[in-house]
Amino acid sequence: MIKKYEFGTPINTEAVILNLQACTDEIEKFRLSENEQEELIFTYQMSAGTKVYGLGEANRGINKRGFCYVSYCTDEPSHTEEKTSLYGAHNFLLIDDEREKFGVFVDNPGKVTFDIGYEEINTLRIIPKYRDMVVYIIEGETLKEILKSFRQLIGKSYIPPKWAFGFGQCRWSYENAGRVDEVIKNYEKNDMLISSVYLDIDYMKDYKDFTVDEERFPDFKNYVGSIREKGIRLVPIIDAGVKIEKGYDIYEEGVKNNYFVKDKDGHDYVAAVWPGYTHFPDFLNQEVRKWFGEKYAGLLDAGIEGFWNDMNEPAIFYSKNKVEEIKTALSERDVVNDDDRLMNDIRWQFDKVSNNSEDYEAMYHNMNGVPVNHDRVHNLYGYHMSRAAGEYFNKYEKNDILIFSRASYIGMHRYAGIWMGDNCSWWSHILLNLKMLPGLNMSGFMYVGADIGGFGCDVTEDLLLRWMALGIFTPLFRNHSALGTRNQECYRFTGTKAFKNMLDVRYRLLPYLYDTYLEAVKKDEMMYQPLAFVYPEDEIAVSIEDQLILGEDIMIAPVYTQNAIGRYVYLPENMTFVKIVAEGKLVTEKLEKGVHFIKVDLTEVPFFVRENHTLPLVKASVITDKGLRKSIMDCTVVYKDSDFELVG
Amino acid sequence: MIKKYEFGTPINTEAVILNLQACTDEIEKFRLSENEQEELIFTYQMSAGTKVYGLGEANRGINKRGFCYVSYCTDEPSHTEEKTSLYGAHNFLLIDDEREKFGVFVDNPGKVTFDIGYEEINTLRIIPKYRDMVVYIIEGETLKEILKSFRQLIGKSYIPPKWAFGFGQCRWSYENAGRVDEVIKNYEKNDMLISSVYLDIDYMKDYKDFTVDEERFPDFKNYVGSIREKGIRLVPIIDAGVKIEKGYDIYEEGVKNNYFVKDKDGHDYVAAVWPGYTHFPDFLNQEVRKWFGEKYAGLLDAGIEGFWNDMNEPAIFYSKNKVEEIKTALSERDVVNDDDRLMNDIRWQFDKVSNNSEDYEAMYHNMNGVPVNHDRVHNLYGYHMSRAAGEYFNKYEKNDILIFSRASYIGMHRYAGIWMGDNCSWWSHILLNLKMLPGLNMSGFMYVGADIGGFGCDVTEDLLLRWMALGIFTPLFRNHSALGTRNQECYRFTGTKAFKNMLDVRYRLLPYLYDTYLEAVKKDEMMYQPLAFVYPEDEIAVSIEDQLILGEDIMIAPVYTQNAIGRYVYLPENMTFVKIVAEGKLVTEKLEKGVHFIKVDLTEVPFFVRENHTLPLVKASVITDKGLRKSIMDCTVVYKDSDFELVG
Repeated sequence: MIKKYEFGTPINTEAVILNLQACTDEIEKFRLSENEQEELIFTYQMSAGTKVYGLGEANRGINKRGFCYVSYCTDEPSHTEEKTSLYGAHNFLLIDDEREKFGVFVDNPGKVTFDIGYEEINTLRIIPKYRDMVVYIIEGETLKEILKSFRQLIGKSYIPPKWAFGFGQCRWSYENAGRVDEVIKNYEKNDMLISSVYLDIDYMKDYKDFTVDEERFPDFKNYVGSIREKGIRLVPIIDAGVKIEKGYDIYEEGVKNNYFVKDKDGHDYVAAVWPGYTHFPDFLNQEVRKWFGEKYAGLLDAGIEGFWNDMNEPAIFYSKNKVEEIKTALSERDVVNDDDRLMNDIRWQFDKVSNNSEDYEAMYHNMNGVPVNHDRVHNLYGYHMSRAAGEYFNKYEKNDILIFSRASYIGMHRYAGIWMGDNCSWWSHILLNLKMLPGLNMSGFMYVGADIGGFGCDVTEDLLLRWMALGIFTPLFRNHSALGTRNQECYRFTGTKAFKNMLDVRYRLLPYLYDTYLEAVKKDEMMYQPLAFVYPEDEIAVSIEDQLILGEDIMIAPVYTQNAIGRYVYLPENMTFVKIVAEGKLVTEKLEKGVHFIKVDLTEVPFFVRENHTLPLVKASVITDKGLRKSIMDCTVVYKDSDFELVG
Repeated sequence: MIKKYEFGTPINTEAVILNLQACTDEIEKFRLSENEQEELIFTYQMSAGTKVYGLGEANRGINKRGFCYVSYCTDEPSHTEEKTSLYGAHNFLLIDDEREKFGVFVDNPGKVTFDIGYEEINTLRIIPKYRDMVVYIIEGETLKEILKSFRQLIGKSYIPPKWAFGFGQCRWSYENAGRVDEVIKNYEKNDMLISSVYLDIDYMKDYKDFTVDEERFPDFKNYVGSIREKGIRLVPIIDAGVKIEKGYDIYEEGVKNNYFVKDKDGHDYVAAVWPGYTHFPDFLNQEVRKWFGEKYAGLLDAGIEGFWNDMNEPAIFYSKNKVEEIKTALSERDVVNDDDRLMNDIRWQFDKVSNNSEDYEAMYHNMNGVPVNHDRVHNLYGYHMSRAAGEYFNKYEKNDILIFSRASYIGMHRYAGIWMGDNCSWWSHILLNLKMLPGLNMSGFMYVGADIGGFGCDVTEDLLLRWMALGIFTPLFRNHSALGTRNQECYRFTGTKAFKNMLDVRYRLLPYLYDTYLEAVKKDEMMYQPLAFVYPEDEIAVSIEDQLILGEDIMIAPVYTQNAIGRYVYLPENMTFVKIVAEGKLVTEKLEKGVHFIKVDLTEVPFFVRENHTLPLVKASVITDKGLRKSIMDCTVVYKDSDFELVG
């Protein structure tokens, strides 16, 4: 049962698809009050044992207790434990209390604070910055039932083309055709399967959206086709900001038609990102979405079949306004003589120019005729950028286009997937990757994955191997790293055989992963369930945060600590422990319900098959007539033809 | 057996106390080569199973494999996984290979890089920036034997006064007597035992070393005495930098006698820290140490019995040189008109002003008559600051003075303890705290501990409780937090009883902890041993990085993940699982060798007593004639009188 409560004058976020009647009585479950800033506070008293799930792409645990989260899409590449806001804003919570279970969705696209036992260990407080919103309370007998109701409320999740379940290699940046060729050549040379290569910002001419630098990629259409012949797709990035440059068509059209976000005086807002100063398309406006969406056509015409939408929080390096503030401060007379002022006053102003909320407060949308301050709808921006693309693809029945985004809000799950944003080559980010999976599924995001190996910082061989042993189980399986960090393609290390094997395992699992994905979308369920959802009566299982049930049949439990020879696992029931070892051989062992230490070598992929369940494992590849090794992606594989079925 | 090898013209670091004859033949174990920068490289080929221990206060695991560490004392408060340098520089490694076991100490006080399987997974490379050094190779049958030889080489560790094993409360900042009183009153009110309150920088007059702000602490001597009557010591901070201020005696004496570190032209080097611009005392000069050491007398005369030496990497906020560089860049004509230049060129210069190695390269010492560039001896600075104090205390037989430092180098362990530097309120830092303990012990540092609850970022009640359940087992047991973070004294949360209990447990364990400490110093052993050292034949035990053997009798295994109801433990032998629960009651359970999941409530302290071993537990406190609760610190307790002995 879903109850809808309206507060103030809600902005239509189009997060939900059901048009429910709003209740007129007081909201259930929560006590309402106000704080000193006259913000509304929704309070729920937890007990020591209450579990709280949800918040999608958020920091910390599967159980979100013990921290204060802030929904506010933020370009935050350093996900250390104290970070309150990451790239997504997914305001859905699932509360599992001894007395009752219910879900709550705060459909408010401005900043929303979720204090889940931070200020007081047993108190949950939800504090939206702005009052205009809809709150949904979803009740049901079980967590799964509540979740299903919520997912029906928000609509079916995006389904990508099947090839998007293959392995993808990315780096900032394969800046020209030569570097792309080199990557592909090395994968081929090492007999490693690969389905896509991603193009980061440097493929564009001066970082201008929908352009291709002809010097770096001469005859792009032909090039895309030649890569496609190898069974590999090129997936270019699209950024939110449009470069200010006379004669650049997107810029000119945007200015002429008032398609850009405005400042308070009605001028196009100016902020610097990769191209230098840019304007931001007003994606919250239907007409702008139509215009921007159609721009994808050029790349589609060149044979492109997938995109990733980036910088759409929107990230701001610095706004024109902030630069002027700094110049004013610098121009004051005493700075030159006053070291102290320069270093303790001016210096810190530089630190505050990026992604400053004052900039967001100074931006205005035209939301289909109604002017709206950006800060009130901040979390919709990335959603509506991807919606622009999705609406275009849908309209023209371009159904098999891959699209995923960095920033997101619930609702976007119907149009696109997401990656988990800029992470780091940290062991702790393997576990964070795992922990985000069920939360994202709860909020409808099914096509998800992290930058395997870590985007920032330097990877090591062991870290990448361990991370891949998790990544091979996630829909988006992409190795990505940042400029200036160590090269981390699978062929860069001593143990190339092990990497080849990992990639093979992915392709062997594909039928299971893809079917599980489709089933989860169809049934409005999670692809990844915390053990708490499957074994709610088992106290230890409920507390486990480093294992997940994937689909109906298997449990994943990756190793995520350095120099470990294995890991502890808790089995809530008898299971078959499976390791895929060198050359793709399987080692299986039946283990009893309870606690175990399993040994897992760096080169091995561990998982568990539930008792009386079955896992199909197919051949990773076939050899074509011409003697080429081709991934099963490119074949019509029915998994009745699988190598065999692994029985748990 | 210890072999000594000299390279170039070694600087006498006084890290070791034995004057061994240098070998004239080629160094054993390592292959020598040069890289493109003409730096010397010591290479050792590891196998997949080789373990490498040591590096003292370093990032990452107990087994240091899989990362590249740089010994270079650095003010680095954000210990994320990619950080190569922390506050200490402890160049001792213990290599446990199937073929051989040996220790290596690189006695080189400049930057030294330890690539332990980063560049190539099985290759260990040691790369000193400067060649002048001594390298010791220590051989022996077992890890413990090698370690003992090394510890005999570097001399006996510092022993603090017994009261320094009590609980200490710190914050940046209890800035005046009123705030100190408030802290003590709240501890008393909640019946919580406490032995010391720390004074951070604000007790000083304008951050000037060895001054006390009379407005904040009127009649300081009398005040110190009044606190002492409650059984509590005040422990003030001493910083490395000396404020440039006409008339300030330390400044005037330092300038007059050429006691400060110089720039290349022989002028006193100018760098800003807390007081604004300062000079750095040249602690590497014996005469300067004598002068500075004697300055502690003033505070000792006021009744102070303990100090913490800070900012002695030395930390630099910005040097006068760097400020001039920025001013020059700013004064160039185009900055005002060129936003791009301002934001992408000038802006980043500000980020690079703190702790910049160019500043260290521009500083010069007078090392007892010999001019030495600071960068070559950088890692000695904190050591010799604390040595200045230690030499003074020793000379005047002030044996019972607590002293510990932030920066350190091997050798300093004879004079002082250390705290693990500025950490964060992160769950991962509980585990990092644990992992640093054996490494520090290997390098001779026995009086050690982390800022319990975390220095930076905001603590939560559950984090602090879990951290305390580890902290009660470490010699330095201090709760410390930074300006602007959430207050984290033990009385700030809802569960005050649990905190009181935790503190009681500490005092109940004191005889065991103190005796274990003294024994470890006497026998040149570790107080905290990785399981690998005690159960070298047990493959799983060898890989365990979240449990430690403490002394001879117990094993610690704290819970360090949020929302956990307990944790997995591996018992390499039968042990008794002990939980100290509410009201100090004990719950014990005999567990068999193997894997277990133990349930541990937030309020409980878990540990294990080894089979046939005994742990004395005394009463935490006694009630005095006047009805006051006094910690056992203030009583003459012989632990024959203990409550009882816990038999494993």
